[in-house]
Amino acid sequence: MKVLVMNCGSSSLKYQLINMENEELLAKGIAERIGIEGSFVKHETTGKEKVVIEEPLNDHKAAIKIVVDALTNSEYGAIASMEEITAVGHRVVHGGDKFSSSVIIDEKVQKAIEECAELAPLHNPPNLMGINACKEILPEAPMVAVFDTAFHQTMPATSYMYALPYELYEKYKVRRYGFHGTSHKYVSDRAAEMLGKPLEDLKVVTCHLGNGASIAAVKHGQSVDTSMGFTPLEGLAMGTRCGDLDPAIIDYWMNKENLTIAEATNAMNKKSGVLGVSGISSDFRDIEEAAEKGNERAQLALDLYYQRVKKYIGAYAAEMGGVDAVVFTAGLGENSFIARKEICKGLEFLGIKIDDEKNNVRGKETVVSTGDAAVKVLLIPTNEELVIARDTKNLVG
Amino acid sequence: MKVLVMNCGSSSLKYQLINMENEELLAKGIAERIGIEGSFVKHETTGKEKVVIEEPLNDHKAAIKIVVDALTNSEYGAIASMEEITAVGHRVVHGGDKFSSSVIIDEKVQKAIEECAELAPLHNPPNLMGINACKEILPEAPMVAVFDTAFHQTMPATSYMYALPYELYEKYKVRRYGFHGTSHKYVSDRAAEMLGKPLEDLKVVTCHLGNGASIAAVKHGQSVDTSMGFTPLEGLAMGTRCGDLDPAIIDYWMNKENLTIAEATNAMNKKSGVLGVSGISSDFRDIEEAAEKGNERAQLALDLYYQRVKKYIGAYAAEMGGVDAVVFTAGLGENSFIARKEICKGLEFLGIKIDDEKNNVRGKETVVSTGDAAVKVLLIPTNEELVIARDTKNLVG
Repeated sequence: MKVLVMNCGSSSLKYQLINMENEELLAKGIAERIGIEGSFVKHETTGKEKVVIEEPLNDHKAAIKIVVDALTNSEYGAIASMEEITAVGHRVVHGGDKFSSSVIIDEKVQKAIEECAELAPLHNPPNLMGINACKEILPEAPMVAVFDTAFHQTMPATSYMYALPYELYEKYKVRRYGFHGTSHKYVSDRAAEMLGKPLEDLKVVTCHLGNGASIAAVKHGQSVDTSMGFTPLEGLAMGTRCGDLDPAIIDYWMNKENLTIAEATNAMNKKSGVLGVSGISSDFRDIEEAAEKGNERAQLALDLYYQRVKKYIGAYAAEMGGVDAVVFTAGLGENSFIARKEICKGLEFLGIKIDDEKNNVRGKETVVSTGDAAVKVLLIPTNEELVIARDTKNLVG
Repeated sequence: MKVLVMNCGSSSLKYQLINMENEELLAKGIAERIGIEGSFVKHETTGKEKVVIEEPLNDHKAAIKIVVDALTNSEYGAIASMEEITAVGHRVVHGGDKFSSSVIIDEKVQKAIEECAELAPLHNPPNLMGINACKEILPEAPMVAVFDTAFHQTMPATSYMYALPYELYEKYKVRRYGFHGTSHKYVSDRAAEMLGKPLEDLKVVTCHLGNGASIAAVKHGQSVDTSMGFTPLEGLAMGTRCGDLDPAIIDYWMNKENLTIAEATNAMNKKSGVLGVSGISSDFRDIEEAAEKGNERAQLALDLYYQRVKKYIGAYAAEMGGVDAVVFTAGLGENSFIARKEICKGLEFLGIKIDDEKNNVRGKETVVSTGDAAVKVLLIPTNEELVIARDTKNLVG
């Protein structure tokens, strides 16, 4: 069984073709600038040269057509015909409170995803465009939706409710949803496997630290809290997002700068986070470099970032009544030994202790805590595509 | 030396007269409905009958005149003449980043308090009215300003900076200030005395849980973080304030209900918190009663409130690299054994363990943790007026 995994943004589309007999990656690629001049598809079949196909891609359908052509190309393709694609798994950002697990896409599901679009106006519509395009290009392949929010649907009301007028929840479903669910699920599952313990016995804090970043409290295999909320703006400081702040600041700020709420919200999403504090970049590699050269605001951005992660680890340990393992994943979590070290510094009282030598790695599944540490610290590269492919296989197979 | 302590709101004024030889309360009272029809002063001299003086109080000056008359009344007063009032200590809510400790009020200080008014438009102006009125009524008495924010000025930038565009800090001083400083200082000082340990050796989490509520991380006697922020809206859920939330909710909410940012901010301050969630009351006694009778939303409001406090305790322990004591103070913190019990439940892994019998008290200085608990839990009634009087004595004396 071969599963095509699709992750559609508004003007781009990432894909992987995975052989589910052995979970081997057969091919992967990205279509960029869909609907914009200068569009192209970068395709790479495992073991073959990377190719760039420059073609006008007017819409997602045109892009998926080129992707299928590339996958079946006799020279640089991975399969002989598109009939080999057994099923398609789609990443869907927002499942609202309708979906607590992955589902086969039918008319009813598609309608429900449309209904959640209001909660994720930038994400669900392109996800739906991808679903519709695949339906046309691959009419025989069953499709599965895998939601970023689903894993967090186990949160209790104490975690998902805001202390706002209750009508906001009743009328408009304003509540915490959480994101990065496939990643938090994948790394917490892997943590249990690596530690050789049943997930049902473990309290794990999973730190997904990419350009978007979130933390989850995973108790006995279930998400009981997470730092992103109604939208992906809440929680940690991120590349360009502010995360937690005093909500009264917005009124003050709008008045001072004569902004609309849309402009202020846009600035909180795009001009804040470590970019806003450092004034340099949203990329942690740039900021780490500047900090090393003595740039104080770059150092402040890093320190502030580390402190927030540290506080969430403490908060989630308190919420779960303890912690057995802390997992780092995604860009910064997988690649920055400084970030892992600084975040864990001072958490020895919890039983967290990093081994500097073991920690000096990148992007490799490994335990980075000392042998005697009561709380294990793990580095686990995330693999959201594999979770999508697995869910697709399970539902279709 | 007798110190008059003044706490002026926009239409009310609380006062205490304290004998600083022995820190004895000589008299206390409140003037209400200043500038509104039906104004009155409730006055009580220690050991005498309470009196209610109904008088039109057009402004703070008129109110303070009546207060001084009451204090010197031959029948129900506490002193023979107003010359016995050696000094006046004023509670001032916002000292911005200008004041890290209490100061004698002179022209320059008064101007600086005025400059901070923009940061606390509801609080600093009435505080200034009180100062000006006292100047006129008690021209000989030196006056001291004691700031709610001052104790938190020791916070490092990692705690006081938001992950917003840096210009907001540079241009408009948007940063965390924190409030309830005199209370957090008082109870952390008392905790060290009660434990018989130098404050410099202790890591204390102080939970000021009143209708407004905030938590502070007090490391070696200094505030290193606190849950209220730029304004008193951030942090815990409170009586009517929402505390932490996803700031992107505001945009969504304003659009849905066609609100202005001022209306949304007002609703976050006045219609949210446990009132918003329970739909019943902002008073925890009402909510506890309703929850006991099986009201689910009342129970949710309580559980959500407890969980937030619990998370902050964990977060601040992580930030300080451990915790030696947790202090409960203010209305709920002093009077609700259920709140203390529920908040501490599950924190045994930190060494926190409540003794149910010891915990079954109200408003009394006492240790409520078990004898063998590594982290001491203390109940300490706060006394902000005494801190103000002490600071006044120290500066004037």
